[in-house]
Amino acid sequence: MPKISEKGQQMPESPISKLVPYADIAKKKGHKVYHLNIGQPDIKTPKVALDAVKNANFEVLEYSHSAGFESYRKKLSNYYKNQNLPIETENIIITTGGSEALLFALGSTMDVDDEIIIPEPFYANYNGYTVASGVKVVPVISSIETGFALPPIEDFEKLITPKTKAILICNPGNPTGYLYSEVEINQLAQMVIKHDLFLIADEVYREFTYDGFKHFSVMNVAGIENHAILIDSVSKRFSMCGARIGCIVSKNSEVMSAAMKFAQARLSPPTYAQIASEAALDTPQSYFDDVIVEYKERRDVLIAELLKIDGVQVATPKGAFYCIAKLPIENANDFAQWLLETYDLNGETVMVAPAEGFYSTPNMGLDEVRIAYVLKKEDLIRSVQIIKEALKVYKK
Amino acid sequence: MPKISEKGQQMPESPISKLVPYADIAKKKGHKVYHLNIGQPDIKTPKVALDAVKNANFEVLEYSHSAGFESYRKKLSNYYKNQNLPIETENIIITTGGSEALLFALGSTMDVDDEIIIPEPFYANYNGYTVASGVKVVPVISSIETGFALPPIEDFEKLITPKTKAILICNPGNPTGYLYSEVEINQLAQMVIKHDLFLIADEVYREFTYDGFKHFSVMNVAGIENHAILIDSVSKRFSMCGARIGCIVSKNSEVMSAAMKFAQARLSPPTYAQIASEAALDTPQSYFDDVIVEYKERRDVLIAELLKIDGVQVATPKGAFYCIAKLPIENANDFAQWLLETYDLNGETVMVAPAEGFYSTPNMGLDEVRIAYVLKKEDLIRSVQIIKEALKVYKK
Repeated sequence: MPKISEKGQQMPESPISKLVPYADIAKKKGHKVYHLNIGQPDIKTPKVALDAVKNANFEVLEYSHSAGFESYRKKLSNYYKNQNLPIETENIIITTGGSEALLFALGSTMDVDDEIIIPEPFYANYNGYTVASGVKVVPVISSIETGFALPPIEDFEKLITPKTKAILICNPGNPTGYLYSEVEINQLAQMVIKHDLFLIADEVYREFTYDGFKHFSVMNVAGIENHAILIDSVSKRFSMCGARIGCIVSKNSEVMSAAMKFAQARLSPPTYAQIASEAALDTPQSYFDDVIVEYKERRDVLIAELLKIDGVQVATPKGAFYCIAKLPIENANDFAQWLLETYDLNGETVMVAPAEGFYSTPNMGLDEVRIAYVLKKEDLIRSVQIIKEALKVYKK
Repeated sequence: MPKISEKGQQMPESPISKLVPYADIAKKKGHKVYHLNIGQPDIKTPKVALDAVKNANFEVLEYSHSAGFESYRKKLSNYYKNQNLPIETENIIITTGGSEALLFALGSTMDVDDEIIIPEPFYANYNGYTVASGVKVVPVISSIETGFALPPIEDFEKLITPKTKAILICNPGNPTGYLYSEVEINQLAQMVIKHDLFLIADEVYREFTYDGFKHFSVMNVAGIENHAILIDSVSKRFSMCGARIGCIVSKNSEVMSAAMKFAQARLSPPTYAQIASEAALDTPQSYFDDVIVEYKERRDVLIAELLKIDGVQVATPKGAFYCIAKLPIENANDFAQWLLETYDLNGETVMVAPAEGFYSTPNMGLDEVRIAYVLKKEDLIRSVQIIKEALKVYKK
């Protein structure tokens, strides 16, 4: 029997896939499971996007251009300009989700065994993409004590080697909810200029900022046009994760022509989803205003409730819809499994994402979980109550 | 300015992308261009598939399972069983096009610098996927003289090294239209058992066979269950290239769990397109019967007309909807460009795909073009007439 690849063996499992069988056990017992583990918002997709697909009339579901519909790219350029991001149509290639945009970015800038520095904890799938691309993640540690702020630039510089090709940030951050300040982005910009690196910024949560904080994009920094690569997606912005539409954006024409060759090899991004995504750009501002209010309220409730639990530490997120919570336990994997397999509070329990999968350094984040606040407030309150009561009896 | 990757530099351009600006020139002159260069069929997508999307009612466009809708995988398993292919639900992961299925197959079975043997000429994007995956294509030459039949097994065996991990075939073949016989598939099967290799079979044109020839799948060979990986797609079967839905199929559970980790990293295949693809399985057999009759007539007309031209050689395809034609010219790239840039017959010209891009061996196929018979018969007749008249004046 032929052996699978080492790469296939090294590919990480998703942080929650090991828990899925235990969630099934809980459900088989008839327990209600609150899913704090997922980034699938319950927010409605804009009707204008869904209607566009319903009303589309064609007889042949054809390939689109490999870079995506030209009409969509033009409209997207206008959308960015309205957000004060100077992005032209030719700076955009539409991708199958932000996932593919990141794969194209890694493929266009890095070769096997090259190194990419990523502030840790980071979006778990970065581990998957980097293994798939054969490149090495070099983590730079950010910590809950500083609210997951940008680590000092010296910490990055200590890690730079001749193999280092890029810095990857997620802003606002999944799983931390941290929003980099203009000062921090400018520090990163100076560093990538100094060391001639790429700065890949995953900004898929751009709209989701709270408390009056404004998102500051790498595309707003003069002088790093040839260094900056933006990863974007409609998934969270328009609550249409199932579309699988994102884009890679750069002013570096060599990067874009390399990315275009990756895009041609896979022919085109999905046509239906592009129709929806193009129409979604007509979503009125009031939709976002309402969504931000909703998320902010959820965040406030979640953080307030979590902080009522003895021994729980949490960094208040300024953006996105996740937080990392440090719990008074030894191993969050065991705790998360126990919550599903063994525990219930009046027939209800919760599923959380152990934070270990968001680190590449071994044994980091063992007592942390990621909580997504994509459920309605009363469910969040109930979920935290379950965690609180569970902690009282766990391993006691 | 940071340098792009070597991989990004090595990624091949699509065989026709260099011609696109010349097609634009032709169109600007007001010339009608017959597109013989593309694999985008003009056949209507089954109405049942398009209607399913129109009638789908949901408020949130959600992620699906990373392996695809369970309902779709179950129905697909039944579809395969009806085609006499013993494929269970758990042997299937839904992918974003056949493209992604091939990426998962390569990623799950091969590491950087490993070798894959592919009968040449082959689907041009195999070059892109292998460069993206960092693996090496070792071509085994098939030739127009034998109608692109399977090269002798000794030719494969001469090329096998300790780095060889897999054989990749496209059956029926793009760009050759060759349909491997049961004897040929069994020869390949014996070879992969003997040398402990994977046999990856791209069977996306399975339904398109002519003259009473029947497709014989690698999934029908007893004894190679752990070796065989099937790449499939709805693109051509249901004329829905823009869906971007395919699947990877294998009975090898290690391969499938590695592929599943790649699938999790990219979250899910597109939701809308899965709705369409699942519904497409209800397409009545009469649809395929009509389509096959149409393609067969187109093929017959195309081949008959091509053979009327002095010095043209063509292997009659037994499947898919492409043929390779050898023309009495020195360089098909130059000829294809000239057809668009300079030539017209009463205001009309054609765009063909130079075959060079379908070879990995340098300087092969220089006098060959790939012609897709996805246009209606009268357009094919007119197109070949244009080529015939063009050859009379080209470089004379």
